[in-house]
Amino acid sequence: MGETGERYDIAIIGTGPAGLEAAINAKIRNKNIILFGSKELSAKLVKAPKVNNFLGFYNLTGKELKNHFAAHIEAMGIGIVNERINNVYAMGDYFALMVNDKIYEAKSIILATGIEYGKPLKGEEKLLGKGVGYCATCDAPLYKGKTVVVVGYNKESEEETNFVSELCGKTYYVPMYRGEYKLNPNVEIINHKPLEIVGVDRVTKIVLEHGEIITDGIFMLRDSLSPSQLVPGLEIEEGHIKVDRNMQTNIEGCYAAGDCTGKPYQYMKSAGEGLIAALSAVSYLDSAKK
Amino acid sequence: MGETGERYDIAIIGTGPAGLEAAINAKIRNKNIILFGSKELSAKLVKAPKVNNFLGFYNLTGKELKNHFAAHIEAMGIGIVNERINNVYAMGDYFALMVNDKIYEAKSIILATGIEYGKPLKGEEKLLGKGVGYCATCDAPLYKGKTVVVVGYNKESEEETNFVSELCGKTYYVPMYRGEYKLNPNVEIINHKPLEIVGVDRVTKIVLEHGEIITDGIFMLRDSLSPSQLVPGLEIEEGHIKVDRNMQTNIEGCYAAGDCTGKPYQYMKSAGEGLIAALSAVSYLDSAKK
Repeated sequence: MGETGERYDIAIIGTGPAGLEAAINAKIRNKNIILFGSKELSAKLVKAPKVNNFLGFYNLTGKELKNHFAAHIEAMGIGIVNERINNVYAMGDYFALMVNDKIYEAKSIILATGIEYGKPLKGEEKLLGKGVGYCATCDAPLYKGKTVVVVGYNKESEEETNFVSELCGKTYYVPMYRGEYKLNPNVEIINHKPLEIVGVDRVTKIVLEHGEIITDGIFMLRDSLSPSQLVPGLEIEEGHIKVDRNMQTNIEGCYAAGDCTGKPYQYMKSAGEGLIAALSAVSYLDSAKK
Repeated sequence: MGETGERYDIAIIGTGPAGLEAAINAKIRNKNIILFGSKELSAKLVKAPKVNNFLGFYNLTGKELKNHFAAHIEAMGIGIVNERINNVYAMGDYFALMVNDKIYEAKSIILATGIEYGKPLKGEEKLLGKGVGYCATCDAPLYKGKTVVVVGYNKESEEETNFVSELCGKTYYVPMYRGEYKLNPNVEIINHKPLEIVGVDRVTKIVLEHGEIITDGIFMLRDSLSPSQLVPGLEIEEGHIKVDRNMQTNIEGCYAAGDCTGKPYQYMKSAGEGLIAALSAVSYLDSAKK
């Protein structure tokens, strides 16, 4: 047992079709699971105007299909922990999942993080941890009274931004999507595409297509972290997590499923892989008597 | 164009979740498809008392789930051709699908034949084509006035048996399942487990757990043919069709999906693979401009 709480059998990261199907199957196999994701399940799914190729459901909107998925996991008593995992470390016989000040422990993990849309900005990786962060609610206290830029890739970024704006001196929001933004009045919206993050030892500014912003911190709130950033040491092949037919990655006890393992980016492919990943993890746990 | 009719883009063999999901995706991609299987879709699925791990559907019987699948393909105008394929031959730039006196042609094929339950009987493979057959309606005319044993693995075998009994001198039915049998009065039901097929150049008898039957022909009507019997030259690995992550087999233009490619034998795994197989076939057709 870790000091911070119970050690789960399987931690599943992601609530798209891959993560949900993995959770369902792990639960049926009586494993003690924790599922990290969003109540909206999948930003991609919710936005889909129409889904016709998920067997059994014809002519549904993505939102309707999402509601069927949500009803399924709810009926099985599967809850979602709405926290953003910043790092996963393989500790030998277990994994440590870092959420800023908290650590979750699990004997095995299933990565169902989807596919990141968009590459890192120029300068982003160099300045990560030096003013660039991926979790605004985690790091906001560091910027009390200071200036912060949030680059938001989805609706949920707005909530994080509002939280940040209550602590920081000045908050800019650079939305990477269209829509109406529900932001505090003191948040300034900048509708210019970000190009580069600049700084030597620490962030000094972000350069936009038109103009730049002098800032102390920058949060990039993408739909998902890239898997190699999330799990150090994870083998990547052509931009995707390398897996075998059992959905096993190069790290023992670590499985992956869904868009993050490669094309086709399709719900049913993801769900099928989620099932396989779950049964592989179950078999790993049982064989090791972990 | 072959002499016997149109050449389809994709022939899909099997109407379990793998075959259905393949058909849906191929149809959405505007391919001209033909789907071989049964109106009951999948004997395994229909018999399932409860399915809880097919994402989006909770606490359904296999039959209810089957009805959702049937409604989906019907809404998309996908029909099922209820014929038993006896052999598939790779002809170079197309495949020939043999149905006794008919030949269907397709530029690519997807095998979604499920998994055969039960090994061949002792002597069965040796005497295949020498009195042992897998298609009773195909070969019945060869046994006019003679004695025939039908080993039936499912309800559909009964219809074939009745057809046979109208031509043959004497028909025995050895059911491999429980239930009520709708058979012609001249069919004799034998409720003993078959053990061995005996003969030198031709079948002479079938040995049962209790007794034996002297016969001219024996039909083994299993749920599905083994893939290596179905498609000569197909590479098999540990009893399953060998595929890569794109569901491609060792034969160009030939894909496989579902239980026939290996464990876990689960509906969602099969459906996911069906999707991948279909998109791989589409990509093969498009790249080759076939």
